Amino acid sequence: MDETAFIESLRALATHPAARGLLDDAAVLDMGGRSLVLTHDMLVEGVHYLPDDPPGDVAWKLLAVNLSDLAAKGARPIGALLGYSLGEQAWDEAFVAGLGAALEAFGLPLLGGDTVRGGGPRTLALTAVGEAQGRVPSRGGGRPGDQLWVSGTIGDAGAGLRGLRGEIARDPFLVERYRKPRPRLEAGQTLAPIVTAMMDVSDGLLIDSSRLAEAGRVAVEIELGSLPLSEALLVASGAGRDARLAAAAAGDDYELLFAAAPERAAQILALQDGLGLALSRIGAFAQGSGLSLTDSGEAVPLPRSLGWVHC
Amino acid sequence: MDETAFIESLRALATHPAARGLLDDAAVLDMGGRSLVLTHDMLVEGVHYLPDDPPGDVAWKLLAVNLSDLAAKGARPIGALLGYSLGEQAWDEAFVAGLGAALEAFGLPLLGGDTVRGGGPRTLALTAVGEAQGRVPSRGGGRPGDQLWVSGTIGDAGAGLRGLRGEIARDPFLVERYRKPRPRLEAGQTLAPIVTAMMDVSDGLLIDSSRLAEAGRVAVEIELGSLPLSEALLVASGAGRDARLAAAAAGDDYELLFAAAPERAAQILALQDGLGLALSRIGAFAQGSGLSLTDSGEAVPLPRSLGWVHC
Repeated sequence: MDETAFIESLRALATHPAARGLLDDAAVLDMGGRSLVLTHDMLVEGVHYLPDDPPGDVAWKLLAVNLSDLAAKGARPIGALLGYSLGEQAWDEAFVAGLGAALEAFGLPLLGGDTVRGGGPRTLALTAVGEAQGRVPSRGGGRPGDQLWVSGTIGDAGAGLRGLRGEIARDPFLVERYRKPRPRLEAGQTLAPIVTAMMDVSDGLLIDSSRLAEAGRVAVEIELGSLPLSEALLVASGAGRDARLAAAAAGDDYELLFAAAPERAAQILALQDGLGLALSRIGAFAQGSGLSLTDSGEAVPLPRSLGWVHC
Repeated sequence: MDETAFIESLRALATHPAARGLLDDAAVLDMGGRSLVLTHDMLVEGVHYLPDDPPGDVAWKLLAVNLSDLAAKGARPIGALLGYSLGEQAWDEAFVAGLGAALEAFGLPLLGGDTVRGGGPRTLALTAVGEAQGRVPSRGGGRPGDQLWVSGTIGDAGAGLRGLRGEIARDPFLVERYRKPRPRLEAGQTLAPIVTAMMDVSDGLLIDSSRLAEAGRVAVEIELGSLPLSEALLVASGAGRDARLAAAAAGDDYELLFAAAPERAAQILALQDGLGLALSRIGAFAQGSGLSLTDSGEAVPLPRSLGWVHC
């Protein structure tokens, strides 16, 4: 059973509006006018992280990928529950130290969880709980004419992973972007009242943009020349079309992908200084369905892979 | 690193009052006067369930053990998030069907979660979210003089597991008690305002009673002759002292263990009919510390194992 078919079968059990049809980054539960935002993500050794990644960085990533889901809903994190598979003592100790540093960096406490002893590759799980004020953006709110935006730079983590695998030169900035993603919590909270739709980019910009468009029943066009690329990525991969396509199909960015009406553009651009984070217009929604790409206005065929399809 | 040392190291990260020092069944978060109760329990194949247990029953158990934690805090379940490791398709399909039946039986929706593909023994995780009205009992509220109570009957699941392992004759009622525990949600909500301390019995009555007493900084004495035993267990194991000690040290009961002032006894006994559940006085708290046992008033040495110690 592949993940898509499995999730399809779970959808029948997710009838409560808070579940958002299992189509969103997180569940959003109304608690007497306050919105509780809940997400649960797992990391599997050898799948979501490399067996020789430093355990402290794995702890950071486990927390960060969950907080990135809260960020995409504009939520402030309240706490986390850990599901942990015990293994070698030194690894476990380094994991706890890293988890402590990550919780402190993001200002939230551990609330509970469970510890087991398994066998086979480690499976690590975390549930993050957050609270959102006011409107909580969904994935499905985009409208034709909306502009598509992304925070930060994309493709860095994918290039970092390629460096760790020895496929390209290893660059410390890119490796850090792979191992220690920064959930865009402040940006998410600031943008939530402005955007029409928002999600985080975890599987790749192209596939996640397709999902955002599909959820809103609109078509999406992305201009490759507008993709925000870091200096380190430009050095590693260049600025050519293939490099841009690779960056747009690489996973693990954990940036915010959002849509907003064109008249919001000046307001959004003005937020960058305060947030210390680039916010880049990369495309637009239109009537219809599907994803199309341009490069300096010229149509470009879609690459075979749009991103990381789970399992 | 054993589980106790690991949890000790996590405790330093669980500074928020909602975490209850990682000493309780669940986290209890104040949301503007409403209490949100959160718990996360995992099941590992071969550790918490048998590889040939029916997948639908494993799904039931995964939900039930989490709901039992909510029951112990008097909470009403709101929803669940699932962390799932994909495996063989037929198993996955039967698991989803069983999860659907269990969610329906307990009247809560699936809110979200994550699906991964791992390897090695399956690790299944669930986060249950509930809401409690009014006072939420802790483990630590017991006082000297309080009476100790337990719901239902104990030792059934342990005998069911022994039957499945071929150590004793296999009895369908006892196997059902092992595979499909019934979280005492209604009883927990009814008892919460009355008790001084409450938890669920998951690792064994003796070890969990020790924990309840330790949390309240009191001693606990249990009278073996008062233990509630099912007809099926009496047939399988008899009513002798060894059988009672075995029942009290067996895990997986998922009954409620609670303390209450003696003047509450009549009120508690009167609840049984409405709940359709036996509530039995099995001992008392006293000044001091530690666990002691009596059988018809005569002191009995503690067995070597008080219950299931994780990992």
